[in-house]
Amino acid sequence: MGHRTIHSASCHCGWDNSLPPAMTIAPGESVRFECRDAAYGHFGPASVDADVKALDFDRVNPVTGPVFIDGAEPGDCLKVTIGNFEPSGFGWTAIIPGFGLLADQFSDPRLHLWEYDSRAAKPAMFGRHAHIPLKPFAGTIGVAPAQPGLHSIVPPRRVGGNLDIRDLSAGTVLYLPVEVRGALFSVGDTHAAQGDGEICGTAIESAMDAAFTFDLIKRKAPPMPRFTTPGPVTRHLDGAGYEVTTGVGPDLMEAARNAVSGMIDLLAATRGMAPEEAYMLCSVCGDLRISEIVDAPNWVVSFYFPRIVFE
Amino acid sequence: MGHRTIHSASCHCGWDNSLPPAMTIAPGESVRFECRDAAYGHFGPASVDADVKALDFDRVNPVTGPVFIDGAEPGDCLKVTIGNFEPSGFGWTAIIPGFGLLADQFSDPRLHLWEYDSRAAKPAMFGRHAHIPLKPFAGTIGVAPAQPGLHSIVPPRRVGGNLDIRDLSAGTVLYLPVEVRGALFSVGDTHAAQGDGEICGTAIESAMDAAFTFDLIKRKAPPMPRFTTPGPVTRHLDGAGYEVTTGVGPDLMEAARNAVSGMIDLLAATRGMAPEEAYMLCSVCGDLRISEIVDAPNWVVSFYFPRIVFE
Repeated sequence: MGHRTIHSASCHCGWDNSLPPAMTIAPGESVRFECRDAAYGHFGPASVDADVKALDFDRVNPVTGPVFIDGAEPGDCLKVTIGNFEPSGFGWTAIIPGFGLLADQFSDPRLHLWEYDSRAAKPAMFGRHAHIPLKPFAGTIGVAPAQPGLHSIVPPRRVGGNLDIRDLSAGTVLYLPVEVRGALFSVGDTHAAQGDGEICGTAIESAMDAAFTFDLIKRKAPPMPRFTTPGPVTRHLDGAGYEVTTGVGPDLMEAARNAVSGMIDLLAATRGMAPEEAYMLCSVCGDLRISEIVDAPNWVVSFYFPRIVFE
Repeated sequence: MGHRTIHSASCHCGWDNSLPPAMTIAPGESVRFECRDAAYGHFGPASVDADVKALDFDRVNPVTGPVFIDGAEPGDCLKVTIGNFEPSGFGWTAIIPGFGLLADQFSDPRLHLWEYDSRAAKPAMFGRHAHIPLKPFAGTIGVAPAQPGLHSIVPPRRVGGNLDIRDLSAGTVLYLPVEVRGALFSVGDTHAAQGDGEICGTAIESAMDAAFTFDLIKRKAPPMPRFTTPGPVTRHLDGAGYEVTTGVGPDLMEAARNAVSGMIDLLAATRGMAPEEAYMLCSVCGDLRISEIVDAPNWVVSFYFPRIVFE
C-alpha cells in the first residue's frame, strides 16, 4: 500500500494536546498504525484470572499517535476513512472488578483468552459454547481536546476517543470535530468483535495494525462524531435471528441493566453457562437497542443476542 | 385459517383486570384480532395538520380484547406466537404537541398520511424524499396487570403493553409474565413500519388484522417480556448501509436526544427536508442503539438512519 507507518512505541495513555506529533501528514494521505491491545500487552497465552488484578491502570488503553494533519484548524471536520485491519490472532476478554454495566453483580476477576483466525474470516470459538463471527474495529479513535492538560483515555468525548462503536470498521467513514491545530489524531483499543454496549466493559481485545486515510472539510465540524457505513452492519450475526430480553421502566440505564441481566439468566438456564461466561459472551456479540423512548414514563431497552453463535 | 375472530368493536383504551373477556380460549388456540389504529379512526385520507389538535386522548391507543386463556394463572408464562398481519393500506404519522423525544423542539402539530401496499410487499413513499420498506407489527401487546383499577395504555409495563418493539412481527414468539387469572391478553396499535425508539412518538400508524397463537408455560413467568425472532431483524433496511449520528455524554436520554437532533440537522442540510419531515421520517425507519455503556462517565448513543430509503 506504500503507507507510512506509526509504530506501537509511539503510543500514549491519555489525551493531551501538548503531546508532540509522532508524524505530520498532508490531507489525502494514508497512515498505517500499529495498535497495542487495551492492556498494553499485559496478557499472554498463559495468563489466568488472577492476572486481571495486576492490570496497571496507568497504562490502560494506549493509543498510537498523535498524527498532525497539516492545515487542520479548530472548527474543521476531520474525515477519517477506515481501511483494513490486520489482527494479531490473540485476544482477551475480562471481567475487571469495578468496571462494566453489572459491576455490582460481578465482583470477581475473570479472563477469557481467544486464539482466532488472524484474517478474521472464521468465527472465534468461545470454549465449547459458541463461535463468534469477527468484525475488527477500533474502539478508541479520536483527536485531541481543546482543553489543556492530560485527560483520561477512558471516557469518550465530543472529539471521539473511547467511543467503542462496533461499526467503526473497514470501509466506514468517520467525521470528527477538530478542536486544536493539526487535529492530533490517535487510535487504538482495537477489537476483533464487540456487541453494541460492550456490556462487560471489554470486547475481544486484540493488538492490530490498521490503516486510515485523512481528509479535511474546512469549517464543517460536526457537533458530535458521526459516520457512514458502506453496507449492512450486523449481517455477519443475524442469519438465525435473536433471543431478546427487555428492560421496561423510567430510567434507561436501569432498563439496560435489566435487559442484560435477563439475558445472562436466560443463557445460564438454557445453555448451562456460568453467569460470568454469559456476561463476557454477551459483551462480544449482543446488542443493546432502545426500542421505545417516547411512551412516558416508561422506556424499553432490549438486548439482542444473535442465535447464530450457537449454530 | 379457521381462526376465531375478535372484532374491533371489542376494544378498550386502558388496562383493567376487571374488564369482561371478549373471548375465552384454550391453550394452543389461535385468534384473529381486528385492530383499530392508535387514533381510533380519527384520521382519514382528507385529514390535515390541524386535525392533530382534535385528537381525543381518552380514546387513544385502543386495544382489541381481552382474551381469557383457560388455565392461565399468576406466575405462568404466556407464549404468544405472532402470525400474519393484514394491513389496511392507509396510515398516518404525526407530531403530537407535548409528545415525542424532542417535544421541546417540535411544538406544532404535523400530520403525514400514507397510502401503501396492503400486502406490505412494496415500500411506502414518503413524499418525494424516501421510500420505506414495510414490516408490520403490533405496537401494543400485553396482558392485564395485577394491580386493580384502570391504568393508562400509554406506558409499557412488566406485563407488556405499549412496548413499541419493531420486531414483534410475523414469526416472532413473545413470552409475557401472567399476573391475573386467564392472563387477559389484548393487542392493538399496529404499525406498518417503525424504527427502534419510535422517536417522534408515532410510527406508520395503521389499522390491521393480525393472528396470534397462545400457549402456556406453567410457573415460568419471565421477569420482563422477552422474545425470539425467526431470522434477521433489519435486513429489509440495511442493504445500503447507514448514516449514523451520535450523542456522547453522562446521561443516556440526553445522548439519545443529541444523536437524533444531529440526524435531523444532517437530513435537513443534505436532503433539503424540513426538520418536521426529517423527524417523522427518522421515527419510521431510524434506529437508536446504545453503542457504549461502560466507559464512565460518558456513554454513547447512536442513531442509525438506513440509506436504502433514499435509493
